[in-house]
Amino acid sequence: MIVDCHGHYTTAPKELEEYRKRQLENPGNPAKGALKISDDQIRESLEGAQLRIQRERGTDLTIFSPRAMGMGHHLGNETTSRHWSEHCNDLIHRVCTLYPKNFAGVCQLPQSPGVRPQNSIAELERCVKQLGFIGCNVNPDPSGGHWSDPPLTDKWWYPLYEKMVELDVPAMVHVSGSCNPNFHATGAHYINGDTTAFMQFITSDLFKDFPKLKFIIPHGGGAVPYHWGRYRGLAQDMKRPPLKELVLGNVYFDTCVYHQAGIDLLLKVIPIENILFASEVVGAVRGIDPETGHYYDDTKRYIEASSLSAADKQKLFEGNARKVYPRWKPQGG
Amino acid sequence: MIVDCHGHYTTAPKELEEYRKRQLENPGNPAKGALKISDDQIRESLEGAQLRIQRERGTDLTIFSPRAMGMGHHLGNETTSRHWSEHCNDLIHRVCTLYPKNFAGVCQLPQSPGVRPQNSIAELERCVKQLGFIGCNVNPDPSGGHWSDPPLTDKWWYPLYEKMVELDVPAMVHVSGSCNPNFHATGAHYINGDTTAFMQFITSDLFKDFPKLKFIIPHGGGAVPYHWGRYRGLAQDMKRPPLKELVLGNVYFDTCVYHQAGIDLLLKVIPIENILFASEVVGAVRGIDPETGHYYDDTKRYIEASSLSAADKQKLFEGNARKVYPRWKPQGG
Repeated sequence: MIVDCHGHYTTAPKELEEYRKRQLENPGNPAKGALKISDDQIRESLEGAQLRIQRERGTDLTIFSPRAMGMGHHLGNETTSRHWSEHCNDLIHRVCTLYPKNFAGVCQLPQSPGVRPQNSIAELERCVKQLGFIGCNVNPDPSGGHWSDPPLTDKWWYPLYEKMVELDVPAMVHVSGSCNPNFHATGAHYINGDTTAFMQFITSDLFKDFPKLKFIIPHGGGAVPYHWGRYRGLAQDMKRPPLKELVLGNVYFDTCVYHQAGIDLLLKVIPIENILFASEVVGAVRGIDPETGHYYDDTKRYIEASSLSAADKQKLFEGNARKVYPRWKPQGG
Repeated sequence: MIVDCHGHYTTAPKELEEYRKRQLENPGNPAKGALKISDDQIRESLEGAQLRIQRERGTDLTIFSPRAMGMGHHLGNETTSRHWSEHCNDLIHRVCTLYPKNFAGVCQLPQSPGVRPQNSIAELERCVKQLGFIGCNVNPDPSGGHWSDPPLTDKWWYPLYEKMVELDVPAMVHVSGSCNPNFHATGAHYINGDTTAFMQFITSDLFKDFPKLKFIIPHGGGAVPYHWGRYRGLAQDMKRPPLKELVLGNVYFDTCVYHQAGIDLLLKVIPIENILFASEVVGAVRGIDPETGHYYDDTKRYIEASSLSAADKQKLFEGNARKVYPRWKPQGG
């Protein structure tokens, strides 16, 4: 079985964006408002996209969350963010209900800059307990590129982490769009968010406080595996424990790295137990690589072309996901 | 001959930091103040550090600039930044005068958040014309982690670029310290700065406007080579030219990547013409890698252990530097 741990609903029916547009035009409106999308519309939005690609590439299940760029925590206010998150998460729930073999749900959280993460707990709990979600996305920078909130290792975040541990769900550390003209969203802000979070983890005792807390750092861990020697050396200079002991019991990288050499490096330097298969389809890079004739984001090909043993491939494609997402229960087939 | 294009004067005599401390305690003081350091103190600061390491590792020349973390453009004001830059650059000049075979000078610029880069031109011109410097360091984020100034591709920067082209000097894109608690300086802010700058270059026509402008992106290009497929794919999705055409006539990566697998990836995906040897000694990572028994930052070992041909090694160690730093004229020996 092949589990893709990183997919967003980037192809949602246009009514979703229209709702968001109306909402942001009037952020003072306390009413949640309705979102009308039919089951057929949902089916249509997936059949030609994520489901087709699952079939074509031979993957089985996508751990699926709302569009990351769409979270837009820097837009609107705490109330708009809550309503928006509820609608987005409900839509993911409908996807998972329509296609229980193909998708498992992960929620976005109703974050806002300056708003305590504990205010996201109610939505996390609703998604996990009522909607059967198996994880959440945590935005380390709700300001959208200004990085004005405390680091992920600050006690500011601890109430949310307590709930994550209680519910036994991991978080993918995933920024949303950037409103800072310095940062291209998918080309800089995403990757910087990943690198930044990892370095925050190295310099803190977060995982002493929460030994069971689990984070997935997407996009192959940002810059981290490429600079693995730097991170090992920095930890050593700071008299911290080796990275394996310091963070690798709690931190996982996905395989959203869109060329063979990058995947080969990831598989070489990071222990296989810490790598989860992912492609982020349909996502940031949609074209065909003229050097290979295949889609850049067809990451399964890179894994298959690597020198991993069959046992290690099984861990990467399925076994590790079962450990990281303990609430995931495969449905039938 | 082996040229290390990335070294900072991290071992300067303590009088330098004492000057800075006094200066920042009284940023309203318009007086520049004196810095008293003897030639013997300079010799002593280098003999046991950079010069010893050059001898031990068999490198010949270091392209040398003031301590990057020390630039602190976010501290003080425009006047303190100018005085501080002048002192730091004068000290580099003295180093290069004492050891002309071992060091070639690169200046820091007197940047400040919100201050136009054209105000740095006078110091750049002084360093190049009067002190014989061969390049400069440009901080893409003078705010120290708040990224509040325009991107490097904004016309805000153009007067500085015009002068760089006129003087025929390249810039290394190098942030300084971070005053944002989200960003560890050498572990996150440095690498993010590199990644961010590259993505800015991809999305702009900067190099159409300045075909002769040259940037070195240090720390192995941040996350870029590891995500080379992502960047190729993003450019393609945006209907931009291939990266080779779009940026590789103007952008170079150094080899400050502190493990073999990282260097191997860099050498594999980036054309050899775009890579400059560097170690950033004495720099961010100072320990010995227990996996190899050698210093993490002894990057020459990784290059030597790679499968590069002798001709390519010559380009990387020397030939490319001659092209990127046309003002550099080897002294004797």
